[in-house]
Amino acid sequence: MIEYRTIRVGLLGAGSVGSQVARLLLEHSDELTQRIGARIELVGIAVRDTGAKRDTQLPPELLTTDAESLILGSDIVIELMGGIEPARTLVLGAIASGADVVTGNKALLANHGPELFAAAEQVGAQLSYEAAVGGAIPIIRPLRDSLAGDRIDRILGIVNGTTNFILDRMDSTGASLEDALATATELGYAEADPTADIGGYDAAQKAAILASLAFHTSVPVTAVHREGITGVTAQQVESARSAGFVVKLLAICERLVDDETGEEGVSARVYPALVPRSHPLAAVHGANNAVFVEAAAAGPLMFYGAGAGGVQTASAVLGDLVAIARRHVIGGPGTAESTHAELPLLDIGRITTRYAITLEVADEPGVLEQIAHVFAEHGVSVEQLQQTVSGAAERATLVIGTHEAKESALAETVAALAQSPVVESVASVLRVEGAV
Amino acid sequence: MIEYRTIRVGLLGAGSVGSQVARLLLEHSDELTQRIGARIELVGIAVRDTGAKRDTQLPPELLTTDAESLILGSDIVIELMGGIEPARTLVLGAIASGADVVTGNKALLANHGPELFAAAEQVGAQLSYEAAVGGAIPIIRPLRDSLAGDRIDRILGIVNGTTNFILDRMDSTGASLEDALATATELGYAEADPTADIGGYDAAQKAAILASLAFHTSVPVTAVHREGITGVTAQQVESARSAGFVVKLLAICERLVDDETGEEGVSARVYPALVPRSHPLAAVHGANNAVFVEAAAAGPLMFYGAGAGGVQTASAVLGDLVAIARRHVIGGPGTAESTHAELPLLDIGRITTRYAITLEVADEPGVLEQIAHVFAEHGVSVEQLQQTVSGAAERATLVIGTHEAKESALAETVAALAQSPVVESVASVLRVEGAV
Repeated sequence: MIEYRTIRVGLLGAGSVGSQVARLLLEHSDELTQRIGARIELVGIAVRDTGAKRDTQLPPELLTTDAESLILGSDIVIELMGGIEPARTLVLGAIASGADVVTGNKALLANHGPELFAAAEQVGAQLSYEAAVGGAIPIIRPLRDSLAGDRIDRILGIVNGTTNFILDRMDSTGASLEDALATATELGYAEADPTADIGGYDAAQKAAILASLAFHTSVPVTAVHREGITGVTAQQVESARSAGFVVKLLAICERLVDDETGEEGVSARVYPALVPRSHPLAAVHGANNAVFVEAAAAGPLMFYGAGAGGVQTASAVLGDLVAIARRHVIGGPGTAESTHAELPLLDIGRITTRYAITLEVADEPGVLEQIAHVFAEHGVSVEQLQQTVSGAAERATLVIGTHEAKESALAETVAALAQSPVVESVASVLRVEGAV
Repeated sequence: MIEYRTIRVGLLGAGSVGSQVARLLLEHSDELTQRIGARIELVGIAVRDTGAKRDTQLPPELLTTDAESLILGSDIVIELMGGIEPARTLVLGAIASGADVVTGNKALLANHGPELFAAAEQVGAQLSYEAAVGGAIPIIRPLRDSLAGDRIDRILGIVNGTTNFILDRMDSTGASLEDALATATELGYAEADPTADIGGYDAAQKAAILASLAFHTSVPVTAVHREGITGVTAQQVESARSAGFVVKLLAICERLVDDETGEEGVSARVYPALVPRSHPLAAVHGANNAVFVEAAAAGPLMFYGAGAGGVQTASAVLGDLVAIARRHVIGGPGTAESTHAELPLLDIGRITTRYAITLEVADEPGVLEQIAHVFAEHGVSVEQLQQTVSGAAERATLVIGTHEAKESALAETVAALAQSPVVESVASVLRVEGAV
């Protein structure tokens, strides 16, 4: 019988992910011991209220409200409380006390990543966060390790399950945003206050984390351009469908040359965009997530799976825990986060994309010419234009697809169109991404 | 100016992957130095013939035929020669001399993995092989690290690009196997001797590697049941298409309870199978690869990308190299391969699957009853049966889909059908995988 050494693990938070982590740690203790070569002992679970009702039965003797003491008695701290404080203070405290840390806290990383990584590097602590992006999907470790010798050019991610569920439902049933959101709430895919999801805040945090990692550059969430799905209409989804596209909320991280400076920079942004049906991301249904990565040598790669869910996300947390614990057994510190590149962070105006614009215009001679003039004077090239005369007299609908142009030029074009006397309204503006 | 220490890298082999690794190492030297915190020096490239013509220009002064001396002067050895010998002896020599090793040699790993891992573990050497399966796709590291805390139940992999190109082309154009193979050869997707690919040998090696890793059990390639695509006909592909399926060559690794012993065991197998069009693997086109993983906590995951190609596979090699080199900088050995589980390896007869069987039968009363009797006496339940009377008189075609049954029972059923006086011929037998 082998005498295994014990590694003490303290868990902060017992929500949907935390309680599953605790359950799996307790249930699969023997198997984990063999994989690690040491015994994992869950020494405590810090919660706000030890008497609170939980989905998963947890041993009451492990529950504590004293997170600080728990940290001091832990070799590895798993932080799954969410939010900035007290999570930030506790994680910094854990690192300072010599513990390694696993966290799934995207808000914390997207706002204070550099501070945490610097603190960890200073003492040689490991800080892992696979669960922070893409739930169960291995994406952090592949970006950090597997693609470490490659050069990542672009990431297109469906990283928010709630909005993907809503948009997928609008696409498959023709439902309005309101109805699809109501269904999502009913089925437990959306929270009572859905702002973080439908406003794109959650996706923006994940974009910040992915961009930092992919481009070896600190990208705070404040540098991420963010548009949510609240403006997406059933009409837009229907038009997209008939044109061979699907509307997806994308987190886009891109390395590009800023043509003003001639220097490379990084753009991170979140917005609903048209994706061609033939693109692998178009086939990501329901609350699933997928991250599409374009690397210089590897070419296109996609990572797909459950982007949320307690037990699914717990898988990512335990993967980090096992990897860290193995290092305790074989010795040697973890790998520090690299931000050696520190590329400039580019404003949304600097990126290049394509627009699909729907206009309500007067149905009279010379209108097309005037519209075309607006595009031309902003240097935006029109790829296709489709006019349908609506039932109401003297009105027509114009759907215009542009070639690639600078976002700033496109935005100015749309503003000028809105001012044009022949345009009654700009009914829809969506970017087109993922085109081949 | 930081003085970086130098890590000496010796490259064995300068084929399509090796020459791209050399090129990228030389071209991206500065960027790699920053990511690693040490300078990578490519000290030599061992080849059989220093005068041979190569696609990529390599510095002639780096070429050598003396692999043994190159190894002795290397901190990290990259083995991309392929084949068992002299690769095996050289890799063991590198490990013995204190070097870490990156290899993309699937034949070597599938046949001698345990020997190599044991040698590496004994001296604390790192041995990485991301390039051995799925080309550029990060799959080895996600299985080993990201899913280390989960329990993998099943892997369905499209791991051979040549056969996927051929089957995809048969599916999309109706071509015969011969014609699709000819196209693959013409376009450079198939080698002059395509046996390793179309015979399923390449996929079987990858199945052995994936199963070993996923189930913490040594699975030699000799334990992998292997069927190639040589028997797949245009007719089968067409029938599959009209029934909502696509034929794919799958590498399947499965953890299952052997009901004879009541114990868990591992099955690894390669065969062409019907996959429902709605399954993510059905959308893997051309020479691309994808690995679909079902884990107990994480649920279904998919990893998709280029499964071959010199520069693509070089990305995986460089990822391993950077990860190993970082460990040189921060200290501490690598993580040993775990085979703690050593589950029994189950024969193909023990697995459970579904069959799609096409029979040519006499078109006369009582035939269906006799056919049904054959299924019933072998304990195989029929899910659906479709009869079409063919143009020729007194002949009918029966397409029978079974429920899940033990492979051995299904095989016996097919053998009994072939003997039945009412069956003129068994036209096609394909397994159905990936059903929901």
